[in-house]
Amino acid sequence: MATNNDVKNTDRIRSEVFRSKIVTADEAAELIHDGAAIGFSGFVGAGYPKAVPAALAKKAESLHAKGEPFQVRVYTGASTDHALDGILAESDAVSFRTPFSTDGSLRRQINSGHVGYIDTHLSHLAQQVEEGFLDHLDFAVIEISGIDEEGHLIPSTSLGNNKTWLEQADKVILEVNEWQPEALNGVHDVYYSVDVPPHRKPIPLVTAHDRIGRPWLEVDPEKVVGVIETEGGDRNTKFTPLDDVSKAIGDNVVRFFQQEEAAGRLPKGTLLPLQSGIGNVANAVLAGLERAGYKGLECFSEVIQDGMLALIKSGTVSLASATALSLSPDAVDEFRDNIDFYNKHIILRPQEISNNPELIRRIGVVAMNGMVEADIYGNVNSTHVAGTKMINGIGGSGDFARNGYISIFLSPSEAKGGKISAIVPFVSHVDHTEHDTMVVVTEYGFADLRGKTPRQRAEAMIAIAHPDYRDQLRDYFERACARPNAGQTPHILPEALSWHQRFLETGSMRADD
Amino acid sequence: MATNNDVKNTDRIRSEVFRSKIVTADEAAELIHDGAAIGFSGFVGAGYPKAVPAALAKKAESLHAKGEPFQVRVYTGASTDHALDGILAESDAVSFRTPFSTDGSLRRQINSGHVGYIDTHLSHLAQQVEEGFLDHLDFAVIEISGIDEEGHLIPSTSLGNNKTWLEQADKVILEVNEWQPEALNGVHDVYYSVDVPPHRKPIPLVTAHDRIGRPWLEVDPEKVVGVIETEGGDRNTKFTPLDDVSKAIGDNVVRFFQQEEAAGRLPKGTLLPLQSGIGNVANAVLAGLERAGYKGLECFSEVIQDGMLALIKSGTVSLASATALSLSPDAVDEFRDNIDFYNKHIILRPQEISNNPELIRRIGVVAMNGMVEADIYGNVNSTHVAGTKMINGIGGSGDFARNGYISIFLSPSEAKGGKISAIVPFVSHVDHTEHDTMVVVTEYGFADLRGKTPRQRAEAMIAIAHPDYRDQLRDYFERACARPNAGQTPHILPEALSWHQRFLETGSMRADD
Repeated sequence: MATNNDVKNTDRIRSEVFRSKIVTADEAAELIHDGAAIGFSGFVGAGYPKAVPAALAKKAESLHAKGEPFQVRVYTGASTDHALDGILAESDAVSFRTPFSTDGSLRRQINSGHVGYIDTHLSHLAQQVEEGFLDHLDFAVIEISGIDEEGHLIPSTSLGNNKTWLEQADKVILEVNEWQPEALNGVHDVYYSVDVPPHRKPIPLVTAHDRIGRPWLEVDPEKVVGVIETEGGDRNTKFTPLDDVSKAIGDNVVRFFQQEEAAGRLPKGTLLPLQSGIGNVANAVLAGLERAGYKGLECFSEVIQDGMLALIKSGTVSLASATALSLSPDAVDEFRDNIDFYNKHIILRPQEISNNPELIRRIGVVAMNGMVEADIYGNVNSTHVAGTKMINGIGGSGDFARNGYISIFLSPSEAKGGKISAIVPFVSHVDHTEHDTMVVVTEYGFADLRGKTPRQRAEAMIAIAHPDYRDQLRDYFERACARPNAGQTPHILPEALSWHQRFLETGSMRADD
Repeated sequence: MATNNDVKNTDRIRSEVFRSKIVTADEAAELIHDGAAIGFSGFVGAGYPKAVPAALAKKAESLHAKGEPFQVRVYTGASTDHALDGILAESDAVSFRTPFSTDGSLRRQINSGHVGYIDTHLSHLAQQVEEGFLDHLDFAVIEISGIDEEGHLIPSTSLGNNKTWLEQADKVILEVNEWQPEALNGVHDVYYSVDVPPHRKPIPLVTAHDRIGRPWLEVDPEKVVGVIETEGGDRNTKFTPLDDVSKAIGDNVVRFFQQEEAAGRLPKGTLLPLQSGIGNVANAVLAGLERAGYKGLECFSEVIQDGMLALIKSGTVSLASATALSLSPDAVDEFRDNIDFYNKHIILRPQEISNNPELIRRIGVVAMNGMVEADIYGNVNSTHVAGTKMINGIGGSGDFARNGYISIFLSPSEAKGGKISAIVPFVSHVDHTEHDTMVVVTEYGFADLRGKTPRQRAEAMIAIAHPDYRDQLRDYFERACARPNAGQTPHILPEALSWHQRFLETGSMRADD
């Protein structure tokens, strides 16, 4: 037996063709060659394979000990878990990674240049592989929750890029994870007609609650070189209780929505489909909507986290469309105990659909994403510290922000105990341009940048900066405006990036620190 | 009579309701109040109103002489002509302008902060007005080429945002321009079901040559407060003969296409629908396609310029979809003389359709746009000199680049006689992020950034820089990589913008100048 996760005699594999392919994770890893490009399942810690990554790491270590090379090129849905990205990185088994990762060990190798990393929009990766812009995939390693009598694959807690990896890879390894609830069967909606140009047709989805596909994944059994039985939980995504800053951000989002409803720019009471990023601030926004008494909202988002589950229970949210269920252990229990209820209110889609620009634009998604920093003119950095160090990646923020009806970015006004301001003169990396940022929210209010010229935007942005930084920002802006030929977007180039440089040198962006 | 453009007794106005509303341009201008928000027709020098702007400028000057205020807020399709933007600016009659302008007088007022300017994606402006994110329009001033018996408006040489301005404005002034060929009737395809969320449906266009609308514009006659008869030519868009640099850029684009066809990433011989920006480099690319022997290509673009007309004639292009016909005087003659031929190969659409993200993504447009500069990691600046001074605006480049099948940016490797490098360490303004730039072309080759990490992109970008700047770029990049904690995207922050600062101080980006 290859790993402790291997469990025989599961009734989850109901097709004889697939039962005949059961192997251990070690046996599957043996098939994978040095340099192989692998499409793994996994999106925000949900539905990643639990056994093959460890077997690959073991294989890498054993080959490296003999002086032989072994590294693979890793494609996923989004972040996975230490049990995939971390252990592969720590065994020096990764040469390339895309599109999004949150693992600390891997991050260090990315930032040293040891691992090649491409920061791809989550909606673009599947099509770019299909179009031949990236590697041809040698393998797909996909977690599922079961295989039915006809050989349909019952998906797991995330769909991510699984449909595309199963189609594109030469060989497929399946992990059937008995830990995943069987009742997930039916919650997924896998659309199979995306195609690449010139064969693309309109995607027939016009509301967040439309079902346009089938509840299973398909695979050519001829390509399946191994089926592994596992039993292991997803990543534990813990949440800290709401703090005052997050709560204030959530309240400011609600105030913005109320302004929009009053002005007739958002339908009263129902708003438009909401996308909400991940983490504590996103959860705080959802909690703010509940406190404000909203009912029957629809979400068209990437991930369903604890906060969303609570809102479904309370009726605040009637429908949540996403590509992954990423829950804390407590929320997993809640979900399992009431799975029939939740399944009525949840649809999981491939990420090329959950994050699809055509659909986000059509149904009018209100996009809400966190950020690292924004500048006074509304350019947003979502990925880099001081312009150089990759944090996690752009994820789906670009998919939603650049196609949404309203694009909102959220952040506490400062970080690192006040040493970093989230509002700066000039962002050190641009992931979302001034053309696309509509609203920025901190605990001090919302800056509504729509219809504002750059100079007007700067006033609005300075007003929501942390009070400790407002004078410093205003000083920069006023001196920039006072220069001869100040231009449409006043800047003092030798100072534009000085806040970041000061942080690198002194540990603080404050001029007086 | 208000202006020399006024001509009576035209047979272009065949509806009695509209004939009864004929006024002079001065009479029409009298109706427009200080502070009015006006949606003008006009896209890249085509189809802008010829009479009302001059009358407004005269009104402004006369009021200003009496110490009374008079300024209007100007919405268009894209650039118009000096006869609109220039004379209004010179009469101090503009307080606000969007989305794109090329006029020198207006540019000076924008860059001094005297005129408020918002640089909006061309596909976004109509919906943002409809959604209530910008001004409510008091007036629409729209050039057309005629009005038929049923009151349908026969469009002029551009559609731009005319459909939306006619729908959204409280009051409408029409200019019927007898200079515009009557045979334009039938060339337009006006789609009337775009709508805003939550009422949006899929747009039923699946090829560049689909017609999905009607050939006329509609207006509620009740809203029409004046019809003016004019006879005046569009802006003369002159082209210089191809120079060697532009020709080399065109050839490099063809080499790139041939690589893609060989790799199976573009359909052989027919490619995918092409979008090509405006100006001499764009014309050179088209000429390169003709020299390479392509036949029957389709274009899904913004503007049809001289080069496109020549390619239609030669059979290189079988169909050109755009929102405007912007021709030199010679090409206007050629077009008029053979209008029945050209009309079979041209479709003019509203810019919310010609530049529509959903459609660009679906049909797989190959986007080719000029740029001001790109940095070694693939971020592109399309709008600002030295981060502050607005040139023209982002135009449609973002609509196409961020949704296209392949996004290509083109530029000569240097400008100002070698004092400016088009490839820099860090762009001074980001209009297109590293996530969206796929290929950059100069006269020295193409940098194919797809599948490349930032460090690999830098190598490819330095290789297409002007030879005089390569050592200087390599020096920056190598020193950035050698720093401790160089990160995913190596930079030296205090030097990142130093090339632009050096240009401002010394007139050159060269380290040794």
